[in-house]
Amino acid sequence: MNIDMIRAAADRLAGHARYTPLLSSPFLDEVAGRRILVKPECLQHTGSFKFRGGWAALSALDPAQRARGVIAYSSGNHAQGVALAARMHDVRAVIVMPSDAPALKIANTRALGAEVVLYDRARESREDIGDGLATAHGLTLIRPYDEPQVIAGQGTCGLEIAADAKMCEIDEAEVLVCCGGGGLTSGIALACAADQPGLTVRPVEPECFDDVKRSLETGTIQNNDRRDGNICDAIFTPAPGDLTFPIMARLCGAGLTVSEDDCLRAMGLAFQRLKLVIEPGGAAALAAALFHGEHLTGDTVIATVTGGNVDRPMFTAALETLP
Amino acid sequence: MNIDMIRAAADRLAGHARYTPLLSSPFLDEVAGRRILVKPECLQHTGSFKFRGGWAALSALDPAQRARGVIAYSSGNHAQGVALAARMHDVRAVIVMPSDAPALKIANTRALGAEVVLYDRARESREDIGDGLATAHGLTLIRPYDEPQVIAGQGTCGLEIAADAKMCEIDEAEVLVCCGGGGLTSGIALACAADQPGLTVRPVEPECFDDVKRSLETGTIQNNDRRDGNICDAIFTPAPGDLTFPIMARLCGAGLTVSEDDCLRAMGLAFQRLKLVIEPGGAAALAAALFHGEHLTGDTVIATVTGGNVDRPMFTAALETLP
Repeated sequence: MNIDMIRAAADRLAGHARYTPLLSSPFLDEVAGRRILVKPECLQHTGSFKFRGGWAALSALDPAQRARGVIAYSSGNHAQGVALAARMHDVRAVIVMPSDAPALKIANTRALGAEVVLYDRARESREDIGDGLATAHGLTLIRPYDEPQVIAGQGTCGLEIAADAKMCEIDEAEVLVCCGGGGLTSGIALACAADQPGLTVRPVEPECFDDVKRSLETGTIQNNDRRDGNICDAIFTPAPGDLTFPIMARLCGAGLTVSEDDCLRAMGLAFQRLKLVIEPGGAAALAAALFHGEHLTGDTVIATVTGGNVDRPMFTAALETLP
Repeated sequence: MNIDMIRAAADRLAGHARYTPLLSSPFLDEVAGRRILVKPECLQHTGSFKFRGGWAALSALDPAQRARGVIAYSSGNHAQGVALAARMHDVRAVIVMPSDAPALKIANTRALGAEVVLYDRARESREDIGDGLATAHGLTLIRPYDEPQVIAGQGTCGLEIAADAKMCEIDEAEVLVCCGGGGLTSGIALACAADQPGLTVRPVEPECFDDVKRSLETGTIQNNDRRDGNICDAIFTPAPGDLTFPIMARLCGAGLTVSEDDCLRAMGLAFQRLKLVIEPGGAAALAAALFHGEHLTGDTVIATVTGGNVDRPMFTAALETLP
């Protein structure tokens, strides 16, 4: 896993993934007490950064293998990213999704042409189901984060952050990243280390699902006991990946955590001040930037918004946090 | 008024205004029956394209005149655009606003450092008030649309549309623009005519406020009798401008109209599929693209989203249009 793989992925993604702009608002700066720049990956195809990794993985397969199709397991955003990337490559996609994923995500994944297989998050292992189907049907498994080409694809987001920070003459800043298994976080960390090394990447997780934070603190991979019971469903994972953790341990600053209420309030402010629709898990980094400045340093912070696939009732709850 | 003024404005705006990306969604294409590309100026500074014109006008003033300050009248978006541009130039801004403008827009304008003077939209003339204050205090009036440098600033949005269309190999398409007095519409029309002449600009207005459509049909400036009573407050104007109308008459295709319900439904779909927050008047062009395809031609349509400054109750009403 290295920067050359990320640059190669960027070449393959050019003209297919969106280059998202850095956004800002003087009103958010006032809340945070420093300048906040927002990388809005909710504006990426399928409403999350996951399209980058999906495209990078599919486009890296040899043609014969790709033609047999791909399989993925995902709580929703990776599902949609892989589904659309597969459709654009004109190949079959089978997606293994938890039966309690937001209805919109399941429906979208189907509408993007994928075959959806549901499983019970509490009783079954998506890894086992995915491996079984892959073997039975000759499908290539695209793991959601612990997969070199997926990390490379997510890392292209970091190349854009580094380039735009350089253009804004930001030589030192913390880059907060909503973190599940660490694919995006480790990819951005590799890209920033190569292209704008004064940027320090820090993972942000929901309280009680802070496996990456604890893993970084202890230097060894830690697990989450819980698997559900928080609105940030997009960034739940049992533990950081075997590939992503060593990269994060080498390159990232300390992890941060945010509450569910922090995420809802950040979603409300993003509606009002940035005109963005963000899902709870996608708002974690922005929430940390807005409400946990005591743990940050420097005049400027860059917050990634990782997704916007939120159901109407949840978004309404976020709007209700506004005065 | 010519393309050189727009290019000069683009040079002055570089690094200050945002270059907004073209967005899309396969789900919206399906609703429309053709490809829709969306130019999301709700992501511009202050949540609307008006920042472009405000910055262009302020930056074109000679320094002594600029130092005395500026005045503007506006239902809200021009107000915020001028207010932020003035603050970034470190000069005084007085804004004349209708007392029934959305509370958020009035509050934002004040928070951006402007002095706000309220007037009664039904009984008073904002032009008279603006002229009076300008004379009394030595302020330069920045008209919302019938002002060459403002048209030039809005036209920079058209340069971006033309450049991105060219990059996507779109040589012929209709460009729908939410239209009030015609500053943005005429600016985009000039830019497209110069840089990608196969793009045809068409103004979109609310039903019963279709002065531009009727003016284009008759070849002479027509007025609106009504001044309020529609949710698209951002694009109400009594008539097209003396500067903007001849440009639109020369370069634009026929006007289109949309209902309030069309706009709310477009806002709902933009929430769900584009992760954008749009105000009713800013959704008119997207609504025409989605729901009035019978009046359009070609495989691709480009819809400008002109603003996102919407109060929570109105946005909630838009969400309620979703199934």
